[in-house]
Order: sequence, then structure tokens, then C-alpha cells
Amino acid sequence: MASSAEASFAVGVDLGGTKIETALVAANGDIAEKQRTPTEAKQGPDHVVETIVSVVKTHYLRDTRRPIVAVGIGVAGQVDPESGVVRQAPNLDWRDFPIRERLQAALGLPISVLNDVQAITYGECRRGGGQGVKDLVCLFAGTGVGGGIVIDGELVRGSSGNAGEFGHMTIEIEGLPCTCGNRGCIETFVGGWAIAERARRRVNADPAAGAALLRLAGGNLEALSAAIVGQAAAQGDALGKELVEETGTALGVGLAAIANALNPKLLIVGGGVVEGLPGLIEIAERELRRRALAAALQPLRLVRSALGADAGVIGSALFALEAARGRRPQSAKP
Amino acid sequence: MASSAEASFAVGVDLGGTKIETALVAANGDIAEKQRTPTEAKQGPDHVVETIVSVVKTHYLRDTRRPIVAVGIGVAGQVDPESGVVRQAPNLDWRDFPIRERLQAALGLPISVLNDVQAITYGECRRGGGQGVKDLVCLFAGTGVGGGIVIDGELVRGSSGNAGEFGHMTIEIEGLPCTCGNRGCIETFVGGWAIAERARRRVNADPAAGAALLRLAGGNLEALSAAIVGQAAAQGDALGKELVEETGTALGVGLAAIANALNPKLLIVGGGVVEGLPGLIEIAERELRRRALAAALQPLRLVRSALGADAGVIGSALFALEAARGRRPQSAKP
Repeated sequence: MASSAEASFAVGVDLGGTKIETALVAANGDIAEKQRTPTEAKQGPDHVVETIVSVVKTHYLRDTRRPIVAVGIGVAGQVDPESGVVRQAPNLDWRDFPIRERLQAALGLPISVLNDVQAITYGECRRGGGQGVKDLVCLFAGTGVGGGIVIDGELVRGSSGNAGEFGHMTIEIEGLPCTCGNRGCIETFVGGWAIAERARRRVNADPAAGAALLRLAGGNLEALSAAIVGQAAAQGDALGKELVEETGTALGVGLAAIANALNPKLLIVGGGVVEGLPGLIEIAERELRRRALAAALQPLRLVRSALGADAGVIGSALFALEAARGRRPQSAKP
Repeated sequence: MASSAEASFAVGVDLGGTKIETALVAANGDIAEKQRTPTEAKQGPDHVVETIVSVVKTHYLRDTRRPIVAVGIGVAGQVDPESGVVRQAPNLDWRDFPIRERLQAALGLPISVLNDVQAITYGECRRGGGQGVKDLVCLFAGTGVGGGIVIDGELVRGSSGNAGEFGHMTIEIEGLPCTCGNRGCIETFVGGWAIAERARRRVNADPAAGAALLRLAGGNLEALSAAIVGQAAAQGDALGKELVEETGTALGVGLAAIANALNPKLLIVGGGVVEGLPGLIEIAERELRRRALAAALQPLRLVRSALGADAGVIGSALFALEAARGRRPQSAKP
């Protein structure tokens, strides 16, 4: 089945506030080549476009053995699915920037623009733990908590590009305020910032119990982080373990809500908090199984994300490649 | 555009624990004829199949001016999307009953089987308030709370037929126990049974404040219901209004979680609780707007369901009709 279509490539771009990751990706998801460049967002969107165009031209387009048919970009922000305009990207300080149009004009290739976490989700679906699964949900917990949805093999983008914002589902009506303005969001329990805040409050309230945490933070309460909570728990510290337990329980509550609402076959979890807190997935899975409906649990598996930092470039590239080929059913609808 | 396809009909069946509603539905969603029959579930699934077959044959198949191309049935239970087997239907006392196979054999027509709330959702989407909208979510609050999801014009069934169980999303980690075994589910705030329970507790705790509610219940605490809470609130009773306020707030919290997670263009709410509690939608919308992300709110409208009791038969019939015609893109996927 190695046709000319199978031999085509796409460039995947993962545009974050500090760095731009790019990769040349084959139709099977293999990465042929990778680059990393600083974003230098302060110099404005034109500069970012120039940087991306220059990387793509210099490193990928010159290689005629690998024909590039499309470029996919994942942006840390809200992307309009129809127009490819970045509505807002706080880390880049962008509002209503027509990145698709600009890249298309400069590169002469079809451009797909996704939200960054949606791109990661698509990568995990097509090439990571989700291969062959048509209904899955990803949830990533780092400083913030985001996610993505694939239904019947299709990435769900949402009517304003915002689908998958699981971090801002309330699981405690009068819970702590979230950065988003809501209260008791999953992120206020599971986000890295929230774990750090909770750790600081506990250490303050009970300095004896918090001694190990404070020591790991170099005696500086402000330096306490989710990663340090994870280290303390790994060393057997009681408060550290308690904080991991609370975080995992809240994560499981959220996953049960998602499982009941969407009934996926697979839940993929990843991100710095998931990697950094020992036993978090096991605690979350226990709570998930305690809370979700039997009918939702029956087909469900919970796994760790498989692609790590490459998921974004792979997902953006494959999404763009399939869009350019018109292989995604959504492009073929009446 | 009036082709022979446009002139074809389907039968929609809404199979509940006490009654079977059937209708002859045109391709545009118009109901040509309706019937209602008791389910007599106690007599077993064979009897229910016989009843449906007899109604369809007697009332609809004989009319040759209206060619029937398919039968769609919505069942109050969990339906396997692939096989059309009813996995479990507590109100009917069914487990693993192959209703699609049985009806197909008896009627010789293509049969589609949906969960009843998914059928209602599809009806609201294709013929009710959701006409022309491709991304929408329905939430129905009666005794229980259920819902359905349409993404890109397609009904989301879930990998085991269970998508849309919004009633069992936790919004309060250590909230009250739900009938499902979880805690703090949306249903424990918004379900009719939960509103009645809450009202009873309040009346018990403060008989003076509860005097009006108790009077409306004929002096019988056990007779207190969500409908009576609605009547009391409509008459200006303070406790009644407080209970409506709490219910609407919780509904808004849940709708905000759904809006953030799925980013639909339209939220349709309906059901006995929504109809019976005055001002409930307004309170819920206020809370939704307070809590949901700006990006999720921007494209979003919240409306009341439009079709009432006919939504189920219309939705089942149109779903079956489109499946039989192969017009739904999912049937045409590679």
C-alpha cells in the first residue's frame, strides 16, 4: 500500500509562549527531523510568522526527497476552527491574529491551525496510546489543565475552537477560585499552581508536618511546587503523600464526570503533574471506578500519554496532512 | 426538491416503562399519525415486541400512500450502538435483549435503536430548537437527569451507547449520595427526586418556613414533590423560591461544565423540572454566564426544548430514516 500519498510529509509546528517546536512528519507519524527555536513573542506576531516560515523553508522545504503537502500548527490559545484565526493567546499576547492566512501566503501550502492541546490529543489518538481507538478523551495536567476529545475518529474542535477545556469543569460548587473566574474547577485541585498553593497553605498551617516539603523547597515557601510535592511523596513524606492522594482523588472525580458525559473507550492522561506525582494515576483510577456508571466503565481503559513532548508536532502534522488529502470524513460531508 | 426520497416516511417508537408512543413521521419531521399503547412490561420482552409489531402493521404499514422505509426506536435504557441490543433497561426489566434483530425479523424493515434521551436529543436537533445547528447539547431534568450530544450534525452515542449522562457528573465532591452510587452528581441537585428530598428535609428542619409547602402537599410530607415546590415558588413562598434558586444555581454550574468541556453552539434544556420550576432557566443561565469561559460563552445560546413529548418519536424516526438512506456521513465512512 506504499503509494505516493503514503510517501508524503507534513510539517508540524507546536507554538508556545517560549519556544517553537517544529518537525517533519511522515504519514505514519514518524518524525524525520526536528527543530526548536525560541518564540521571542515580545517581538510581535510578524516576527513569530517570519521565524516559522524561515525554519520551514530552511530545514524542510529544501529536501526534495520528502515532498511536503501541508503544514499544521498547534497554538497555545483559542483558534477559530473555520478561519484559522487565533482569537486569543495570552502567552503570546495575541488577539485575532490570522495565522493561517499569513502562513499560507508565505509558504504556499495548505495550513491547518489547532489549539495546542487539541493537537496533542490528535497526536496521541493517531500515533500514541489511542491508535485504532475511535472514541477517546485526553486530559493533560501541567500548570493548567486542558484536554481534547476524539469522537468516531474525528477531533472535536468545538463551535469556537474551545472543546476539551476539562480543567474548568466545576467539581466543587463553592470551591476555591480558579484563574478562569469560576470556582472549584478541576484545575483548582489538579493544576500545578493549585497543588503548590495547597502545599503552601498546609505547610503554613502545620510547620512540623511541612518540614520535609519546606526543606526540599530550600526553606523558601514560595519555591514550593507540584514537582516538590511529588518528590516529598516519593520519599515517603506524610504531607506529600496526602497532597498526592487529594490531587488523585479530584482527578478521578473529574475523569468519572468525563466518562459519564462522553462514554469514551479510552482516557489518556498526561502532563507534568501526572508524571511528577507518584501513584497519581492509580489513585485517580480507583476514584474513577468508584464513581463512574457501570455502563461507562465497561468499555473504558485509562492510560498514560505515550508520546510525551512530540505529541503536538505529530498531531498538528497528521491533522494537516489528512485535511490536505481530504481523507478526513468531515471534509467530504454533503 | 420533492423527490421520492422526500416523500418517504419512517415510524418512530418511544418505548418507556409504562407506555409505548409511536408515530408515522415524514422526512421533514412532520407527524402524520400517532398512537399510544400501554407497555405491559411485566409480560416480558416478547410481548412488548408483539405490541410494537402489531401497532406498526395495523396503523402504519397498511397505508400504501405513505411508504415506510425504516423504523427507529428509542428505549429507556442502555443500547449497544453496534448491535442494537438493549444492554439494560431497568424500567422494562430487560437485560441483553436483541430488540433490533427481533423487530427486523418481524417487520422486514431496517431498524435503528437509540437510547430514549439520545432520540429526544436528535429530534430537538433536527426538528426542534436545534434546527440548522451542528453542535448542541440537550439536558433533560425530570425525576432523573439525562442528556444527549450532537457534534457536527451527528448524534454522539458513546462507545457503549451511554454518551450524554450529564446527570451523573459530580459538581460537589462530597455531596449527597446519588441513585447511581456516586456523590454530588448534578442529579442530586436537579433531579425531581432530589428536589423533593431536599424540600422534605427543609420542611422537617423548619416547619414554620415549610408551612406552605406542607399545605400544598395535603399535609403529607411524603407527597412533597418538585412540582409542589414549583407551585409554592409561583405563589411567592420563600422556601419554595429558595429551593428553586438552589436548583437553578446547580443546573447552571453543570451547564457551565458542559459548555467548557464541549463548546456547543446551543444548550437545550427541558423536562418536567425545567417546566415546573418558575424562573429556573433564568437562574441557571445567570450562573452559567458567571462561571463558563468567555470563549465557550461567546457562541452559546441557552433555550428551552421545543418539541415536548413528540421529540422522542420524531428523533427516532428521523435517525432511522437517515440511516436507511445512508445519508448520515457515519454510514459512508471509509
